[in-house]
Amino acid sequence: MTTRNITRFWEWGRKIICVGRNYADHAKELKNAVPTEPVLFLKPPSAYVKEGSPILVPHYSSNLHHEVELGIVIGKGGTAIPQTSAMEHVAGYALCLDMTARDVQDDCKSKGLPWTLAKAFNTSCPVSDFISKEKIPDPGNVNLWLKVNDKMRQNGHTSQMIFSIPYLISYISEIISLEEGDLILTGTPKGVSSVQEFDELQAGIEDILTMTFKVDRL
Amino acid sequence: MTTRNITRFWEWGRKIICVGRNYADHAKELKNAVPTEPVLFLKPPSAYVKEGSPILVPHYSSNLHHEVELGIVIGKGGTAIPQTSAMEHVAGYALCLDMTARDVQDDCKSKGLPWTLAKAFNTSCPVSDFISKEKIPDPGNVNLWLKVNDKMRQNGHTSQMIFSIPYLISYISEIISLEEGDLILTGTPKGVSSVQEFDELQAGIEDILTMTFKVDRL
Ligand SMILES: [Mg+2]
Ligand SMILES: [Mg+2]
Ligand SMILES: [Mg+2]
Repeated sequence: MTTRNITRFWEWGRKIICVGRNYADHAKELKNAVPTEPVLFLKPPSAYVKEGSPILVPHYSSNLHHEVELGIVIGKGGTAIPQTSAMEHVAGYALCLDMTARDVQDDCKSKGLPWTLAKAFNTSCPVSDFISKEKIPDPGNVNLWLKVNDKMRQNGHTSQMIFSIPYLISYISEIISLEEGDLILTGTPKGVSSVQEFDELQAGIEDILTMTFKVDRL
Repeated sequence: MTTRNITRFWEWGRKIICVGRNYADHAKELKNAVPTEPVLFLKPPSAYVKEGSPILVPHYSSNLHHEVELGIVIGKGGTAIPQTSAMEHVAGYALCLDMTARDVQDDCKSKGLPWTLAKAFNTSCPVSDFISKEKIPDPGNVNLWLKVNDKMRQNGHTSQMIFSIPYLISYISEIISLEEGDLILTGTPKGVSSVQEFDELQAGIEDILTMTFKVDRL
């Protein structure tokens, strides 16, 4: 496994850990309480999709939402990582979309069921190219935006996160050990909205990177 | 990646997909409705633990339950696999425990939160050695049992599954593509119960294999 290349983490990384409700304004727009500890859920690596391939609307959903998020790519694994050394475990970043079947998620929430069908389907995790750590000296202080068909929908700032990146790395790794190649999705700012077949999503982070995805149906 | 050995799938496999409530008698004991479609949730590969290492009770739980389950090890990946060819995608099996923080799961269910803290923590997926496909000619017709400190707690039969193995492979792969090395946990029969620090769990499948795990606290 010495040939693993962190810049292609989506090809071999073994988990995607997502944080929900990490921006107060987004928690409010979905009428959720602002959490007192991080809300965690998982996507499988089969959820990854890269530019050039479409985001597919699951056949069982009629309300697929975009959530633009900063992704943390883990370079050095660990368990119960202290906050003070958490950033040493970060190899870099990726701009990510946490695609969410909102109708299905609402149904899961009301029935007390796991969120898998809402969050873990194929193409539910579009990711940008790898962004090296040096390009984002302060990941708690960058702008993220997303447009649907050229209309701005989300325009937030990672300084609005409720739980900081070092806190999340420490909190998660106490429960779920982190490994090289893992990805942490850090939550989305407000402005999530529905996308349809043929829509074009464009997302960006500061002046560092933009990415574009088309939406398709199976 | 040509050196991957399916008999050590836990070292490199990228996902664990679990089916909940797949035995009617277990759904009833937890007062859940018998499902009309499979309930799916995920564990990350960091949840794997092998004999010789302990099962750890999460610090935030005081009601850790055992669930003995037949695990399906995927040999050939695929998307939307038809039921008729599903068994061609199976490389073999493993005896598995779906360790569940039942108090936390009850809390997640009542709050509409994902099941991650209840199901995905470190050591939440004890697995046996790999069992080759030939050793279980009919996986829908085998006995699974689990003892805690020599007392029989679960003694079920895979013929009691609500959704068959070919059905599960087909259903899952339509939503979440399967890859070589993936593991599917097929649900547990009735008899789940609480385990404590220093308990010894022994589980077996027919006369094919037994495994033993100790319970410890962090
Ligand atoms: Mg989940
Ligand atoms: Mg999100
Ligand atoms: Mg189970």
